[in-house]
Amino acid sequence: MAFEKMIKNAFEESENNCRFGDTLEEIKEIQDYIKNAQKIYIPNKNGIKVKVLNQVLSEYNLHTAEILHINTNIADTSRIPALAKAYMALDQSDADLIIARGRLGIPGSGSLLIFIDNKGRILTCGTSPSHAIHQKPIEEAVYNEACEALEKIGFEK
Amino acid sequence: MAFEKMIKNAFEESENNCRFGDTLEEIKEIQDYIKNAQKIYIPNKNGIKVKVLNQVLSEYNLHTAEILHINTNIADTSRIPALAKAYMALDQSDADLIIARGRLGIPGSGSLLIFIDNKGRILTCGTSPSHAIHQKPIEEAVYNEACEALEKIGFEK
Repeated sequence: MAFEKMIKNAFEESENNCRFGDTLEEIKEIQDYIKNAQKIYIPNKNGIKVKVLNQVLSEYNLHTAEILHINTNIADTSRIPALAKAYMALDQSDADLIIARGRLGIPGSGSLLIFIDNKGRILTCGTSPSHAIHQKPIEEAVYNEACEALEKIGFEK
Repeated sequence: MAFEKMIKNAFEESENNCRFGDTLEEIKEIQDYIKNAQKIYIPNKNGIKVKVLNQVLSEYNLHTAEILHINTNIADTSRIPALAKAYMALDQSDADLIIARGRLGIPGSGSLLIFIDNKGRILTCGTSPSHAIHQKPIEEAVYNEACEALEKIGFEK
């Protein structure tokens, strides 16, 4: 079942008050999309996040990603900077899958690592508190967010 | 420093390539906003989430919230259903703070519990995998998401 049909069905359930949470079939569909994604891009100025994310993707037997060199500073004016970065990358590439990381909301709100598909739909995410709170190296924070995002939708190492 | 000034400063830093993550002052500002919030609403059809969320708010010495009875089924047509519910509640009340819970993205993507301020800006969040993955009772999932959201911005019990 393609996402389009799944989304249509889920909304019909909501509309009729008979939606009782996500189903294993829906989760499997997201997994399959991510497994089949060939063109995975990570918008980034430098390569630090990309190296860590590719390590995670390999550990879960997924295709690795490429860096998309774009300056995403402007995304920080958006209400959800991480998502704005993801959309910038989607709109400037032929990606099947974008993995973007940035601020969740206002300054202080911590970080969000988000996976979107080729239409900009949100598939999963991982989050961290601000560095000022968790004090972890950025590599460790990115690693944990990516594992959280994949395990949330049932991937296992 | 009000959020407006903090957001302006943070963007100027991003623009000038001298933003190095959230600061403790910014996090403190979010904490103060949440501590001072008097009119806290939770959009919900029934009271289950509200009871659990008020338990969490009490444990962190915050003001408790009231249920805002609105039918949020339509939010499931949105790209970020949890955020759509939050905006519905904000636009139909005089809230200082809205706490809303719903789907993160497409069906299967799990849940997002989000705190927004009186302008709709995102302050913090907590997330869970779908029930089909975590198998926890809803009360436990909501409890954990709310604690995650508060601890992420430095609140302690």
